[in-house]
Amino acid sequence: MPTSEQEFLRVIDRHFPNQGSGLLLGRGDDCAIIDPGGPLCLSTDIFVENAHFRRAYFSPADIGHKALAAAASDLAGMAAQPLGFALSLVLPDDVDDAFLDEMLGGMAALADRLGMPLVGGDLSRGPALTLDVVVLGKPGPSGRLLKRCAARPGDALLLVGEIGLARAGLMELEHMAYDEAAAWPGAVAAHLRPEPRIAEGLTLAQIATPEGPAVCGLMDVSDGLARDLPRFLGPYGAELSLGLEDLHPEVAAFFTAHDEDPVEAAVLGGEDYALIACVDQKQLPVVLAELPQARVIGRVSAAPGLRLNSGQVLRQGFDHFAKPAQG
Amino acid sequence: MPTSEQEFLRVIDRHFPNQGSGLLLGRGDDCAIIDPGGPLCLSTDIFVENAHFRRAYFSPADIGHKALAAAASDLAGMAAQPLGFALSLVLPDDVDDAFLDEMLGGMAALADRLGMPLVGGDLSRGPALTLDVVVLGKPGPSGRLLKRCAARPGDALLLVGEIGLARAGLMELEHMAYDEAAAWPGAVAAHLRPEPRIAEGLTLAQIATPEGPAVCGLMDVSDGLARDLPRFLGPYGAELSLGLEDLHPEVAAFFTAHDEDPVEAAVLGGEDYALIACVDQKQLPVVLAELPQARVIGRVSAAPGLRLNSGQVLRQGFDHFAKPAQG
Repeated sequence: MPTSEQEFLRVIDRHFPNQGSGLLLGRGDDCAIIDPGGPLCLSTDIFVENAHFRRAYFSPADIGHKALAAAASDLAGMAAQPLGFALSLVLPDDVDDAFLDEMLGGMAALADRLGMPLVGGDLSRGPALTLDVVVLGKPGPSGRLLKRCAARPGDALLLVGEIGLARAGLMELEHMAYDEAAAWPGAVAAHLRPEPRIAEGLTLAQIATPEGPAVCGLMDVSDGLARDLPRFLGPYGAELSLGLEDLHPEVAAFFTAHDEDPVEAAVLGGEDYALIACVDQKQLPVVLAELPQARVIGRVSAAPGLRLNSGQVLRQGFDHFAKPAQG
Repeated sequence: MPTSEQEFLRVIDRHFPNQGSGLLLGRGDDCAIIDPGGPLCLSTDIFVENAHFRRAYFSPADIGHKALAAAASDLAGMAAQPLGFALSLVLPDDVDDAFLDEMLGGMAALADRLGMPLVGGDLSRGPALTLDVVVLGKPGPSGRLLKRCAARPGDALLLVGEIGLARAGLMELEHMAYDEAAAWPGAVAAHLRPEPRIAEGLTLAQIATPEGPAVCGLMDVSDGLARDLPRFLGPYGAELSLGLEDLHPEVAAFFTAHDEDPVEAAVLGGEDYALIACVDQKQLPVVLAELPQARVIGRVSAAPGLRLNSGQVLRQGFDHFAKPAQG
């Protein structure tokens, strides 16, 4: 473990470039100076040991990757182009140099792929390994940023990415022996190594028909569809139509094997880092042609509430902050 | 303590407005959208229980105030105008609703004075109360941002604010009974309630003579002059000239009473949140006329290293991250 801030900064410099387009002044002064050339998107995501991850089954590189991936997913949910990020780290005494190096390496590999220079951060000792990531972005080639609460009744709801897969991975990793996890590679990877859907967000913002831009609203699904959809829909509701064929095969198999309804489990989800979009029905064919991996999972209803396959979704998704239920 | 993220967000909304100039979209979506109208300054400062503060002598409002003040001081050190901030919070189970309310209230009062809306953040449970603050700023009326490493040999070094006062306050609060702290009100306040010198930073950037802008470089002194000056001076050094008359009366009295040299203790300092600036000697009279509270404390030397009153400063300032010395 680095014994001084100076030594730590050398480790940081080894992993993260200190330049990038839109970065006028990098790390090393009182502030970084960023030139977004227009509006700037900002989101923060904190990743705390034993609240969000366990060292028992996250490798150091997984921790670094996921802390940045979860934060960057909020950029994807605005259809933003990544600009850079800042990292505040709390290191407990039992984190050694090799662990730190591997963790920052996992983060740096994703940052490099996303084109995100590290523009600043801070460091402290503390009892729990904590990574607080601030991501910065700007509008992509479309010039548009896509918000929540733009859906109108009748719009199609589009899902990009898997739901329930990370939930299965979490259950597997929490409750079973680690080598059994090899039986559920997709689920475990979805929990340990989520991929922010930056490219899909940028594509969705660009799709247009003669009537104009096709996608009116976008959001990243991180607390599960059941919890996030109401935030996306505002005053409206949705009628969801989801079958086993809409789910990743491991989601269907895992929850069936554990006597849970796979579709309901998928809707509860959590840490999916999928995207949900609303699209005018008339423009739907163009969107599906340009982003074939998007799936229609329902439509916006004027009445609030979520109805799943004509039933009612009542249970809420995952709240990292809520105390575990008693009993 | 709030039992859900939703309840927590209601507490946040009670304390912090969700709008401000330059804020296109506030809290509540995947990202906030900020329009700096040009370059944006960003800095982060993490504030961790028992590393940076103790609940034994910080009131909840002090904690909220200081977490934001320390971060905002980095904006002052660039001569930036505050735009907004984000807050990531880790709350342990023993933080109750009243504590949280008072802590956010202390932060909100400073945010209001500085004109900084809260643009986002995150929340988690964890073992140590942690506040990670990201501050955003932009150039002030001068249009200039002032960096480090702009000093040239011969420049005057100007200090705005007190050095050593917060160090005295920390020693007092750590090692003595709390009611004795009343004997050192300035020192204790400097440690618990530092004030970011935003207005002074903006003024320094604006002072000009017919030869041009007067202040070429600026930095906030947060780790003590002995540690921060080399970062400010780059390849150069400084000859410091400091006497008891340059120190706050409590600094002189406190360290004398504790058998330490007050001037050396002040130069070691730590958490001063003062500003250090370099000014061409010819333009010095204009700067001192426009900012009378600024004090000349030395001059930049071509030779590296710091010389204090013709001696040598060897000891380093405070490193929050370094392990305490053994023995």
